[in-house]
Amino acid sequence: MSDVKVKVGILGASGYTGAELVRILAHHEASEITLLTADRRAGRPFGEVFPHLAHIKLPTMISIAEADWSTVDLIFCALPHGTTQEVIAGLPEHVKVVDLSADFRLFDPATYKEWYGAEHAAQDLQKEVVYGLTELHREKIKKARVVANPGCYPTPVQLALTPLLEGKLVHAEDIIIDAKSGVTGAGRSPKEMTLYAEVTEGIHAYGTGGHRHAPEIEQGLAWACGSDVVVNFSPHLMPMSRGILESIYVKMTNGTTAEDIQAALEKRFADEPFVRVLPFGVTPQTRHVRGSNYVLMGVVKDRVPGRVIIVAVEDNLVKGASGQAVQNMNVMLGLPETMGLEIEPLFP
Amino acid sequence: MSDVKVKVGILGASGYTGAELVRILAHHEASEITLLTADRRAGRPFGEVFPHLAHIKLPTMISIAEADWSTVDLIFCALPHGTTQEVIAGLPEHVKVVDLSADFRLFDPATYKEWYGAEHAAQDLQKEVVYGLTELHREKIKKARVVANPGCYPTPVQLALTPLLEGKLVHAEDIIIDAKSGVTGAGRSPKEMTLYAEVTEGIHAYGTGGHRHAPEIEQGLAWACGSDVVVNFSPHLMPMSRGILESIYVKMTNGTTAEDIQAALEKRFADEPFVRVLPFGVTPQTRHVRGSNYVLMGVVKDRVPGRVIIVAVEDNLVKGASGQAVQNMNVMLGLPETMGLEIEPLFP
Amino acid sequence: MSDVKVKVGILGASGYTGAELVRILAHHEASEITLLTADRRAGRPFGEVFPHLAHIKLPTMISIAEADWSTVDLIFCALPHGTTQEVIAGLPEHVKVVDLSADFRLFDPATYKEWYGAEHAAQDLQKEVVYGLTELHREKIKKARVVANPGCYPTPVQLALTPLLEGKLVHAEDIIIDAKSGVTGAGRSPKEMTLYAEVTEGIHAYGTGGHRHAPEIEQGLAWACGSDVVVNFSPHLMPMSRGILESIYVKMTNGTTAEDIQAALEKRFADEPFVRVLPFGVTPQTRHVRGSNYVLMGVVKDRVPGRVIIVAVEDNLVKGASGQAVQNMNVMLGLPETMGLEIEPLFP
Amino acid sequence: MSDVKVKVGILGASGYTGAELVRILAHHEASEITLLTADRRAGRPFGEVFPHLAHIKLPTMISIAEADWSTVDLIFCALPHGTTQEVIAGLPEHVKVVDLSADFRLFDPATYKEWYGAEHAAQDLQKEVVYGLTELHREKIKKARVVANPGCYPTPVQLALTPLLEGKLVHAEDIIIDAKSGVTGAGRSPKEMTLYAEVTEGIHAYGTGGHRHAPEIEQGLAWACGSDVVVNFSPHLMPMSRGILESIYVKMTNGTTAEDIQAALEKRFADEPFVRVLPFGVTPQTRHVRGSNYVLMGVVKDRVPGRVIIVAVEDNLVKGASGQAVQNMNVMLGLPETMGLEIEPLFP
Repeated sequence: MSDVKVKVGILGASGYTGAELVRILAHHEASEITLLTADRRAGRPFGEVFPHLAHIKLPTMISIAEADWSTVDLIFCALPHGTTQEVIAGLPEHVKVVDLSADFRLFDPATYKEWYGAEHAAQDLQKEVVYGLTELHREKIKKARVVANPGCYPTPVQLALTPLLEGKLVHAEDIIIDAKSGVTGAGRSPKEMTLYAEVTEGIHAYGTGGHRHAPEIEQGLAWACGSDVVVNFSPHLMPMSRGILESIYVKMTNGTTAEDIQAALEKRFADEPFVRVLPFGVTPQTRHVRGSNYVLMGVVKDRVPGRVIIVAVEDNLVKGASGQAVQNMNVMLGLPETMGLEIEPLFP
Repeated sequence: MSDVKVKVGILGASGYTGAELVRILAHHEASEITLLTADRRAGRPFGEVFPHLAHIKLPTMISIAEADWSTVDLIFCALPHGTTQEVIAGLPEHVKVVDLSADFRLFDPATYKEWYGAEHAAQDLQKEVVYGLTELHREKIKKARVVANPGCYPTPVQLALTPLLEGKLVHAEDIIIDAKSGVTGAGRSPKEMTLYAEVTEGIHAYGTGGHRHAPEIEQGLAWACGSDVVVNFSPHLMPMSRGILESIYVKMTNGTTAEDIQAALEKRFADEPFVRVLPFGVTPQTRHVRGSNYVLMGVVKDRVPGRVIIVAVEDNLVKGASGQAVQNMNVMLGLPETMGLEIEPLFP
Repeated sequence: MSDVKVKVGILGASGYTGAELVRILAHHEASEITLLTADRRAGRPFGEVFPHLAHIKLPTMISIAEADWSTVDLIFCALPHGTTQEVIAGLPEHVKVVDLSADFRLFDPATYKEWYGAEHAAQDLQKEVVYGLTELHREKIKKARVVANPGCYPTPVQLALTPLLEGKLVHAEDIIIDAKSGVTGAGRSPKEMTLYAEVTEGIHAYGTGGHRHAPEIEQGLAWACGSDVVVNFSPHLMPMSRGILESIYVKMTNGTTAEDIQAALEKRFADEPFVRVLPFGVTPQTRHVRGSNYVLMGVVKDRVPGRVIIVAVEDNLVKGASGQAVQNMNVMLGLPETMGLEIEPLFP
Repeated sequence: MSDVKVKVGILGASGYTGAELVRILAHHEASEITLLTADRRAGRPFGEVFPHLAHIKLPTMISIAEADWSTVDLIFCALPHGTTQEVIAGLPEHVKVVDLSADFRLFDPATYKEWYGAEHAAQDLQKEVVYGLTELHREKIKKARVVANPGCYPTPVQLALTPLLEGKLVHAEDIIIDAKSGVTGAGRSPKEMTLYAEVTEGIHAYGTGGHRHAPEIEQGLAWACGSDVVVNFSPHLMPMSRGILESIYVKMTNGTTAEDIQAALEKRFADEPFVRVLPFGVTPQTRHVRGSNYVLMGVVKDRVPGRVIIVAVEDNLVKGASGQAVQNMNVMLGLPETMGLEIEPLFP
C-alpha cells in the first residue's frame, strides 16, 4: 500500500447506499472519491441531495453517460436492479467493481430468470463474478475483479447457518427465517408503502414465501451443505430506518445440543473483526449495531426439544450493503480489511 | 336488558388497561362506572392521570381498602400479577369479575407455581373461573362469575390454531410462534427497557423460549387437540405503542393443503363480529386494527413443502386486554356482545 | 330530523381525509354514504385502499365523471387544491358542499392569486361561500350551501386569538405562531420528504415565512380585530402521523394580565363541546386529542414582561379537516352538532 | 503533544452522556480511558450496561469512593445535577475537569440558588471555573482547570445570538426561543414522561417560561450585549432520541436587514470547524447533525417587518454535551480541537 490513493467511483450516488458509501469513504485513508453519478440529479452537488454530508469535498454528480472511466480504479455500483448488467459489462478491464445491486448475486441463470422475469444480460461476465460475503468467501474475493455484494437479508443468515450446515449440526430441510427490517432497504424512491404515516407504529409481513432474497439465501446455504435447500423466509417491515433482525428457527441433528451450536459459532468467528457471538442465551438488538459494520448473533435454547433459535442483527445499510462493499474493496485491493470501517454503533 | 345500568368498577384504573376500559365504557350504553381504584394515586381525579379522558365524568380514584362493594355489580380487575388472587377471593358473592391479570389464567396449580414461583393463593376459586377467550369459550362465559381474561399474546394464536388443531389439520408438536409486540404490554411503570430512547428505531427478542405466556398458549392448544403441547414462542419488542403481530409457522398433516387451512378458518369465524380472515395469501397489518377489538388473520403458502404460515394481528390493549374484557362482560350479562366495541380502527 | 338519512358523497375518497370521513360517518346515525369518487382508483373497493375499514359496506369508488349527483344531498370535497373550483361550480344547486381543499378559503381573489399563482376560477361562487370554522361562524354556516372547511394550521390559532383580538387584549402586530405538525397534512401521495426514513427521529422547519396557510390565518385574525394583520407563521414537520401543536407568542395590551387572557378564553369556550381551555399554566399534548375532534389550549405566563404564551393542539385530520367537516355538515343540516363526533382520543 | 496518552476518567459513566464520551474517546488518539465510575452499577463491565460498545476494552466501573485519582489527568464529570460540587471540590489539584452537570454553569450564586433551591456548595471553586462554550470562550478554556460544559439548550442559541447582540444587530429585550428536543436530554433514569408510549407520535411543551436553562441562556446573552437580558425560552419534548432544534425569533435594530444577519453569522463562523451557516433562506434539520459535533444554522426573513428568524440545530448528546466536552478537553490540553470529533452525521 503506497501513498497513492485508489480512485473510487460511485454509480447511483443519490440513493441511501450511495450516501452511506460517501460517509464511510470520507474516513478511508487509502482511497479518494473521484466520480459520482446520479442520472436524474446530474449536475447537482452531492451536498444538496444529502445535506448531512455537505461539508465533504466531492466531485459534482454527473450522468453515467458522461463518466470518464480513466479517472477510476474501482467503482461501487449502486444502481437499481436490472439496469446494472449492461453497465458493468461495458466497463474497461482496468476497473474493479463492487456491485451492490442484485444483478450478479444469483449464479444460476435459470434461477435469475425465475425470480427477475428476464434473461440475465451478462451471463459470461457472471461466470467470473465472486459472491461477496466477505467472511465466507474472502480468498476468492482477493482475486476478484467483480464482486456481487450480498443482499441485506442474506448476509446474517448465511453467516449464522454456514458453520452449522457445514458441520452437519442442523437439518437443511427445516429452516425458518423470520426477518424484521427497517425501511431503507426499500430505497429512497417515494412509494406509498414507505411513507412515514404508513410505516410508523405498526408492523406487517410482506413478500411472505416469495421474497427475491429467498433464492440468494438458498444458494448460499446450498453451498454450505452441498445439496439443494428450500427455506421459509418471511420478511416483515417495521418502523426503523436501519436494521435487520433475523430470528432463525432450526432443528438440530441427532445428538447436537444448543451448546454445541454456540461453540461452533464462537469457533468460526473468533477472529472475525465484524462478527460477534454473544454469550449463550443472550440475544442482540438492532440498535446496538446501528451505523456500524457489525453482525451480532445469539443462540437460545428452544422449549421444543431438538430445536434451537439463533437471533442475528446487522445494519442493512452497512454490513448489509455499503459497509460490506468497502470491506470487499479492502480485500480486493490488499488493504487492511477494517480500514474505514472502525465506526462505533450509534446508540441511543 | 332494562334501563337500569350495570354498575361497574375498575380496580387498578391508573394503568394503560384501566384507561382503555374507561375509553370503551364511555360509550357503553348499558353500564356506568361507579368505582375506580388506584392505590398509589388514591384521591386524584382520573383526568389528571389520563388527560385525554379528562372531559368524562368519573368517580375520584380511591384505594382498594376504601372500596364499597355494594356500589358495583361487576368489576374489571387490572391489578398487577400476583396481587389479584386475594383481592378477588375476598369479594362478596354478588360481584362478577373480569380479571385482566395473569392470576387465574393457568388452571393447573403446578404450572402456575412453575412459572410464577409461588403457590397459587386461591386454588378453590380457580376451579370456578372460566377462561375468557370469548370466541372459543362463549357458552361457559355466559354462566361465569369470574372470568380470567386472556393474555395479549395468547389471544390471536389460540384463535388461529384452535380450529386447525381440532380439525387435525396441523401437527401440534411443531408450532413456532414469532411474535412482535408494542410496548404498552409492559405497562406504565417506568422501566429502563421501555424508555423511548431504548425502544425507538430498533427491535430485539426477549424472553425467548421462556416467556410466561408460553404455558397459557400451550394450555389453550392442549384443550384444542386433547393432548399436551409444547410450542416455540419467541416474542420481540418493537417501536409501537399498541399492537401484536404473530407469524405462526406450522406443519400440515398429510394431505392437508394451505387452501384447506384457509377454508377451515373462514368457516369457523364466518359469523364472528371481531375476527376476520383475509383473502388467501393476504396478510394483515397491526395498524389496521389499532384502537379496535378486531383480530385479523391471513394464510400464506410456505415455500417449504407441507408447511403453512398464518399471520394474525390484534391491538394488545383492546382485543388483547380491555376490549375482550368488555366483550366478556357483555356475554356474562346477556348484553349484545358488540356493545361499546363498535369502534373503528385509527389509521394512519 | 326525520328517519330518512341524508345521502352523502365524498369526492377524493382515497386520501387520508377521505378515509377519516368514512371512519367518522360510519357511526353518524343521520347520514349514509352513497357516493365515493377516486379518479385514479376508480373501480376499486374502498376497503382495498384502506383495509382498516374493509368491514364497512360502502359503494365502489368511481371517477367524478361517472358521478350521478341525484344520489347525494351533500358532498365532502377532498380533492387536491386547484382542481376543486370547477368541480364545485358545476354541481347542481340541490347539492350542499363542504370543501376540504384550499380553493375557497381565501375570500380576496387577489390574495388567492398571490399565493396560488393563478386566477381564482369561480369568483362568483366564492361570494356565497361561508368560512367553516364552526365555533366562530356557526350562524352563517347554518344557512350556507357551500362551506370552505378551514386549513389544519389556521384552526387552533384562530380559535385561540379571535377572542383576544376582539377583546383588544393582545396586539395584532406582534404575533408569532410556531407550529409543529405531523405528516398526514402533506397527504398520501408519495414524496421523498414524507418517507419514513426522512421523517423519523428528527424535526425541521419548512415554508418558514411563506406557508400558504399564513394568508388564511391573517384573514381570520383581520376579521377578529377589524384591520389588516401580518403574522409570523413558522411550521415544522416532525415524526407524528396526526397532530398539530401551536405555540403562540403574543404581546398583551396595556394593563392586561395573563390571567385576563385565561379568563377571556374560558368565557368564550365555556359551552363549546369541542374546545377545552386547560387550567391556567397547564399546556396540552397532541397525543391527548389524537383521533378526536377536540381542540385543547393552555395559557402560560411569559418570563418577558407583557408577554403571554398560548399553546393549542388538535388532530389535523379531525378538527383540522374531516371532523370539522362533519361538524359543519351537522350545522348546515340542523342536526345536533356533535353527532358522529363523540369519539374519544386514542392514547397511548 | 507527545506519545504519552492523557489518562482520562469518566464519573457517572452509565448514563447516555457517559456512553457518548466512550464512543467518541474510542477513536481519540491522544487519550486513553483509565477510570470509569458508576455508583449503582459498580463492579459491572461497561459493555453490559451499553452492549453497543462491548467490543471496546475498558476498565470495570467502580464507585467514586473507590477511585484512585492518581490514575487520571483529566476527568469528565457526568454526575447528576446537585451532586457534583462537592466531588469536584474534593479532587486533587493535578486533575483537570470538564463538568457536564449544571453545577458550575451559573456564575452568580444568587441565580443558582433561585433556580436550584439550594446554596451553591463550592462558591470559591466557581470563581475559577470557565464556561465551556468553545467557540465563544476558547482563549479562557485554554488556561482553565475546571470547565463548566454548557447545557444542551443554551449552546445553539448562544452561538447564534452572540455575534448579533455584540454587533447590536438585534434587540435583546424581544427574544423568543422555541426549542424542540429529543428525550435523551432527560437522561436514562426511568420516568413515566420518557416512556416510549408517552413520547411517540406526539409533542408537548414543558417547563414553559420556567426551564432551568433559561438563566444560563440569559447569562450568556448578557455577556454578549453587556446588560441584563430576559428571554422567552419555551422547550418542547418530541419523539426523537437525539437532537435539538431552536427557532429563534428576534427583532432587528433600525436599519438592519436579514441579509446583514446572514453576513454577520457567516463572518463570525467562517473558520469554525463545527459551526456551519447555511445559505440564506435555508434552514437545517436535526437529523443532518445526528451523532456529530456540528451546529448548523439558517437565517430566514420574517413576514413581519423588522423581524428575522434563525433556526439552529445540534445533537444534544454531542455538541450539546459529550462532543463539546471532548472539544473542550482538546483545547485545555493543547491538542488539535477536532481530534476524535471528525465523526460524520448518521442519516438516515
